[in-house]
Amino acid sequence: MTDYNTQLIEQRRELHQWPEEGWTEFWTTSYIVKKLQAYGYEVLVGTKVINPEQVFGRNQKLVDLGIKNALERGADPKLIEEMGGYTGCVGVLDTGREGPTTAFRFDIDCVCVRETDDPAHKPNKEGFRSQHDGYMHACGHDTHASIGLTLAHWIADHKDQLKGKFKFVFQPAEEGVRGASAVAASGIVDDADFFFGSHISFMADSGEIVAAPYGLLCTSKYDVTFKGQPAHAGKEPNAGHNALAAACNAVVQMLGIPRHGGGMTRINIGTLRAGEGRNVIPSSAHMALEVRGETSSINDYMSEQVMNILEGISKGFGVSYEISQMGAAVDFTNDPELSELIAEVAKETEGVEKIIPDGNFGGSEDISILGRRVQQHGGKAAFFICGADRAAGHHQSTFDIDENALKTALGMYVGIAKKVNGI
Amino acid sequence: MTDYNTQLIEQRRELHQWPEEGWTEFWTTSYIVKKLQAYGYEVLVGTKVINPEQVFGRNQKLVDLGIKNALERGADPKLIEEMGGYTGCVGVLDTGREGPTTAFRFDIDCVCVRETDDPAHKPNKEGFRSQHDGYMHACGHDTHASIGLTLAHWIADHKDQLKGKFKFVFQPAEEGVRGASAVAASGIVDDADFFFGSHISFMADSGEIVAAPYGLLCTSKYDVTFKGQPAHAGKEPNAGHNALAAACNAVVQMLGIPRHGGGMTRINIGTLRAGEGRNVIPSSAHMALEVRGETSSINDYMSEQVMNILEGISKGFGVSYEISQMGAAVDFTNDPELSELIAEVAKETEGVEKIIPDGNFGGSEDISILGRRVQQHGGKAAFFICGADRAAGHHQSTFDIDENALKTALGMYVGIAKKVNGI
Amino acid sequence: MTDYNTQLIEQRRELHQWPEEGWTEFWTTSYIVKKLQAYGYEVLVGTKVINPEQVFGRNQKLVDLGIKNALERGADPKLIEEMGGYTGCVGVLDTGREGPTTAFRFDIDCVCVRETDDPAHKPNKEGFRSQHDGYMHACGHDTHASIGLTLAHWIADHKDQLKGKFKFVFQPAEEGVRGASAVAASGIVDDADFFFGSHISFMADSGEIVAAPYGLLCTSKYDVTFKGQPAHAGKEPNAGHNALAAACNAVVQMLGIPRHGGGMTRINIGTLRAGEGRNVIPSSAHMALEVRGETSSINDYMSEQVMNILEGISKGFGVSYEISQMGAAVDFTNDPELSELIAEVAKETEGVEKIIPDGNFGGSEDISILGRRVQQHGGKAAFFICGADRAAGHHQSTFDIDENALKTALGMYVGIAKKVNGI
Amino acid sequence: MTDYNTQLIEQRRELHQWPEEGWTEFWTTSYIVKKLQAYGYEVLVGTKVINPEQVFGRNQKLVDLGIKNALERGADPKLIEEMGGYTGCVGVLDTGREGPTTAFRFDIDCVCVRETDDPAHKPNKEGFRSQHDGYMHACGHDTHASIGLTLAHWIADHKDQLKGKFKFVFQPAEEGVRGASAVAASGIVDDADFFFGSHISFMADSGEIVAAPYGLLCTSKYDVTFKGQPAHAGKEPNAGHNALAAACNAVVQMLGIPRHGGGMTRINIGTLRAGEGRNVIPSSAHMALEVRGETSSINDYMSEQVMNILEGISKGFGVSYEISQMGAAVDFTNDPELSELIAEVAKETEGVEKIIPDGNFGGSEDISILGRRVQQHGGKAAFFICGADRAAGHHQSTFDIDENALKTALGMYVGIAKKVNGI
Repeated sequence: MTDYNTQLIEQRRELHQWPEEGWTEFWTTSYIVKKLQAYGYEVLVGTKVINPEQVFGRNQKLVDLGIKNALERGADPKLIEEMGGYTGCVGVLDTGREGPTTAFRFDIDCVCVRETDDPAHKPNKEGFRSQHDGYMHACGHDTHASIGLTLAHWIADHKDQLKGKFKFVFQPAEEGVRGASAVAASGIVDDADFFFGSHISFMADSGEIVAAPYGLLCTSKYDVTFKGQPAHAGKEPNAGHNALAAACNAVVQMLGIPRHGGGMTRINIGTLRAGEGRNVIPSSAHMALEVRGETSSINDYMSEQVMNILEGISKGFGVSYEISQMGAAVDFTNDPELSELIAEVAKETEGVEKIIPDGNFGGSEDISILGRRVQQHGGKAAFFICGADRAAGHHQSTFDIDENALKTALGMYVGIAKKVNGI
Repeated sequence: MTDYNTQLIEQRRELHQWPEEGWTEFWTTSYIVKKLQAYGYEVLVGTKVINPEQVFGRNQKLVDLGIKNALERGADPKLIEEMGGYTGCVGVLDTGREGPTTAFRFDIDCVCVRETDDPAHKPNKEGFRSQHDGYMHACGHDTHASIGLTLAHWIADHKDQLKGKFKFVFQPAEEGVRGASAVAASGIVDDADFFFGSHISFMADSGEIVAAPYGLLCTSKYDVTFKGQPAHAGKEPNAGHNALAAACNAVVQMLGIPRHGGGMTRINIGTLRAGEGRNVIPSSAHMALEVRGETSSINDYMSEQVMNILEGISKGFGVSYEISQMGAAVDFTNDPELSELIAEVAKETEGVEKIIPDGNFGGSEDISILGRRVQQHGGKAAFFICGADRAAGHHQSTFDIDENALKTALGMYVGIAKKVNGI
Repeated sequence: MTDYNTQLIEQRRELHQWPEEGWTEFWTTSYIVKKLQAYGYEVLVGTKVINPEQVFGRNQKLVDLGIKNALERGADPKLIEEMGGYTGCVGVLDTGREGPTTAFRFDIDCVCVRETDDPAHKPNKEGFRSQHDGYMHACGHDTHASIGLTLAHWIADHKDQLKGKFKFVFQPAEEGVRGASAVAASGIVDDADFFFGSHISFMADSGEIVAAPYGLLCTSKYDVTFKGQPAHAGKEPNAGHNALAAACNAVVQMLGIPRHGGGMTRINIGTLRAGEGRNVIPSSAHMALEVRGETSSINDYMSEQVMNILEGISKGFGVSYEISQMGAAVDFTNDPELSELIAEVAKETEGVEKIIPDGNFGGSEDISILGRRVQQHGGKAAFFICGADRAAGHHQSTFDIDENALKTALGMYVGIAKKVNGI
Repeated sequence: MTDYNTQLIEQRRELHQWPEEGWTEFWTTSYIVKKLQAYGYEVLVGTKVINPEQVFGRNQKLVDLGIKNALERGADPKLIEEMGGYTGCVGVLDTGREGPTTAFRFDIDCVCVRETDDPAHKPNKEGFRSQHDGYMHACGHDTHASIGLTLAHWIADHKDQLKGKFKFVFQPAEEGVRGASAVAASGIVDDADFFFGSHISFMADSGEIVAAPYGLLCTSKYDVTFKGQPAHAGKEPNAGHNALAAACNAVVQMLGIPRHGGGMTRINIGTLRAGEGRNVIPSSAHMALEVRGETSSINDYMSEQVMNILEGISKGFGVSYEISQMGAAVDFTNDPELSELIAEVAKETEGVEKIIPDGNFGGSEDISILGRRVQQHGGKAAFFICGADRAAGHHQSTFDIDENALKTALGMYVGIAKKVNGI
């Protein structure tokens, strides 16, 4: 009999050692594809699961480097070629028996954080620290991928007891909410009757399940570049068009975009790089920003204000600008039947000690785009939280989670797979 | 024999008691006109000396009130009617002998300052304090007008010893550099061969003459109004278009207009009035501002930047705006022959102890517009400083000047009148 | 039999003609006191119902003018004297039978809006337009006062059928949430077992009742004054300390105070008055602002950010500042029993067609301070909305409401008075 | 007979091919030292000519790399070791005959500009383009060094006709005005009776000499770092202390520092790097800025305003900050005797067609610090301009100059050397 629990931990630790950022998960994808194929899944990659027109925030140089690294680490060149430059994959298993199509989504990318050198940090103690310097699975997507693979294994092992079709979406580039739009636009989840996904260790500790987190904020991510005119700052400052000043005034105005009476808003200019030298009127500036809103229309309000500000600043400072969308997520509400189903499964799942009906997620997750796509096509969708104790908060260099929670999470998914089959 | 010195002081003190702000000097003009006529001058008023198209910063309500006050104070209703709503006058005296046309300019308006109640303040001690509450001759234009009138008297008395024609321009609305453009545009100084004007007690103390002050900055004065959209600040802040926020961001940007490599610049937003109530998104804002530049083209650069900022802010904040020009002065340089003439006269004038060849004026004076008009029509023009000790700086409520300086100033002008006649 | 409905309309129209702003409602208070006394109420005024230490935003000059106006309009000088400069009153009626103490609160002040001249505006058509130029009952407090008085009348008429004690709080200065703190601090509602208040025509139309509006935002109101140093803007701009620039930068920073993860925030700088003259570096600035927060701690966060910004700006611009609190409201939640009671009464009240259980108020109302005071002393409190069609939004010059709603509102209060008596 | 003109061009082209930025001119210094020694000069390096306490803007990593590069390019390891990590050198030649000590200063560093690939660019056409990618002699210091070396050669060849002592200061790190303070503080020019330096191709074309450029602005260079607190921008923006927002507001305030009535000011924030990621409240920001003033006291005024703003921003945004001085220059006025001497020499120098007495330099040059040091120790100092036609403005990637001007410049210096010796 397969030891799923051992598999869960081993896979998670293997994946933890080679974290890859969004749109560069070539080794990770290749690792997943090989396993899924071994379990008997049909596996789709490349533009079959990614619509290039909806790809946000993908950098060709990083992609090229990711491919090089993956090949060096032993990825199958033929598979890499088949991927056509796009990461992520979808595994499909048809039980051959009539029944619903059930889709699961697991995200696989890492964050750009350097894992701590602290010897007390468990991945250091037990030898599975990131070998990819500057990159770290500090948001738990290594566990997501491992849970997904183990669930796929379980389902393949038990397909004779199940009905309908199962789809496993291993989504790239969740960080920055860059990946889901392209997966959704490929149409790969349009036929799903049920769609499930989860996040580990967010809002909840080991033994806790949050059945229906609310407050998934809509968000849009933008990169903005200003171009001005350089000039000697001592001799002729008036001859310049100061892109740094333009950017700073844009920041000041954006932070002051009025709150919205209809619900929560957010704005963050996360990075700003401007100017060429101390004694030169700065001629270029680049900023990475995001807006969020409690609903799509509030999020659109924020985006529209940003656009107006940019246009105004461009005029006032005599600078040109370009803006590119780099990511997107929408608001999302679980179908209540699925929230109930999750709560029922939780009651019967080993390791679950507390079922929390709801709670404010207060951030963005691009599973919302996939979930809404399913709902728009007549399916039902839900997102839940598998609690897990953590050594430090998400995205921190000392982040680590209680690996026991993986077993609980797998239990939840197995329970869900059974329940949608009426078992 | 006329006691010009007594006249100088008496007239100054009479004028000091009824100060009138720019474009409302109806009583003052009437006072001057009557004297000039008594001395035998032909006196022109109204649109003969004011071109309405170049009138800046004139408020009809204040004009109406000024007329009412002047009539109450005893001004001749027929003369007031003849003025047609415009203040200022020009007295002309033709000696009947061939010779040059010499024009002198004296400004006559006051500032909006409440004269101090301090009993030690000389106008209080000696009973000639302003009776026009909130208005004060705190820039010495009362002395200018008195010097002009006494000089006119002297010239009339001595016209048989003189040649050519004399013109006395009593200019309204110098404060805010609002009046000279309209006088210049009337053409009244176009035939002047020589043109002189001066300021009292600026940059120099009693006994000092500055023959050729430089650094008369070009300036443009603007009023700007933003109109936005009100909204309930608690319920629906997003529904507003915040004119106060627009104005504040405009201020911040304007203060940051780049310095100019070609010379001095200035910008001041002197007043800002915005908003309707604490809990309402402000829907209106009004600002009074000025720019200055060492030259016309630098001043134009500043104005252009202001225009760009306003347009950008309008776009960024979704507010409309209006801008009106309220005043103007240009840069000005004395014709060197006249600077020399002034210095020579100074050597021979009683009371002058020190002749300072030049010095940075560092402000604006709209005599520059008249002086340049004369120069453009082939005449020669000069502006000089008659020093005078003062109790406090110009525009302060305790401003007062050493009245002995009036005698010195008159001596200078008499000397100039003789010198241009070759006497 | 008393015609309460006629009384409702007549009183409202009388009050509408002499609107008085917060802390100046001397004629209005006098009008109410006389009526209450006529119905047999004991009436308390002055410091019996107002604790001067918690009075916010009261201007002595306006108070003096309000007294003068009230006396001219026929207010009883003895009563005015008894009020000791403070408006508002509390009427008390003891039925003499054991039972609960029930308090009702009605606010009585107006807003500083000039009522429209449009002949189609009903108060113009029917001759009850504001005669107090620049002031208008544009928030419906005229109807509140009239409903309160008519209810007091009904209760006095029916006191034999009722039990316990009734208190009618006619609160001054609700606009700007300035009055409730002082009333609460007087202790006058500390003995209330039940406390009710309502707002007309907010969030709901004629025939609608909102039983438990949520989202009453905490708020703090502040006035801020900056003092800098004037200087000649052309000659020596560096010598000034620019209070206008300080204020504009403070505004820009305040509008950018980060959103709060825990709930809604608001900030509005409603008015800004800065500067003395176009060519003077501004030496003074005054702003009226408010912050809001979904909870007290979020509101405190906003206030703290404001304080930090002011201190930083003071340092950066070399200006001093003063800040005074001008108003306060807290968040408030109905006791659920009373929300239910209101809903039940609504079912039985003539004119009510729709009962809306809850809804986002999204603003501030200082009834929250009185309601929380009652709750803290062991009583139960509730605030509800009486819908009414309106000609235009609250605080607009064309605001007017469907007078039929007054009858419905009175019906609600009569039903409440009965229900708390178990009738 | 030595062909000085050929030497001028050849050396300039050799130096042009290996440009080194300030404090990393190890190969350049080594090149110069070897030549000077060959001509018979005593050469001082390291802390004999550099006072480490006054070294501004030196980066140890770049120094290490510069040493490595110099060694690879063939610099003498013993000499490099003797330099002790500091670039620049002073060559001393004593004629053995009594006479004045005359010091000349030549700066040797390059700018961080990538030289154009345009085949029409003369260094490309004639094969002497920069081989140090990203670095370029785009300010003509290659010509300065070559002129200095050739002059040193000429003086050594003609020492029997000359008197007194000659000092050749080859100064590092003029760009960013980082180097002169350390050279001055070493005391190496304290004994100079005469001190001369020049800039090529600035303000003037081939054949022109500007004898006494004025308007050398005082300047201070600063690096500023803000440290705040990161937080999740969606979940808890209020928990952060936004260093990017702090920096942008600081920029906005700094650009608005009031102009100075006493003379020119400048401020430039040349670079800003802030923030860590799009969805993180930025916790760090770094800016490189400079202020300038027409005089030391005006420059100090600018620095003081910057300090006040930083302190205010630190308070307002809850961020800490550090500020380091990175460079300095002062204002400087030629001793009139030397300006005259230069003009006289120019009259007799081949190639000079036009002698311009003065002109506004309008920038900063740290020769001012050396010149003032000499003046403070009783010597006389002067700075002049050797005109040269140029292909593009200084600091541009297509900058190149008319090499004929080197001959004229050498002629000027030879003439000066003779004239101070009374020849």
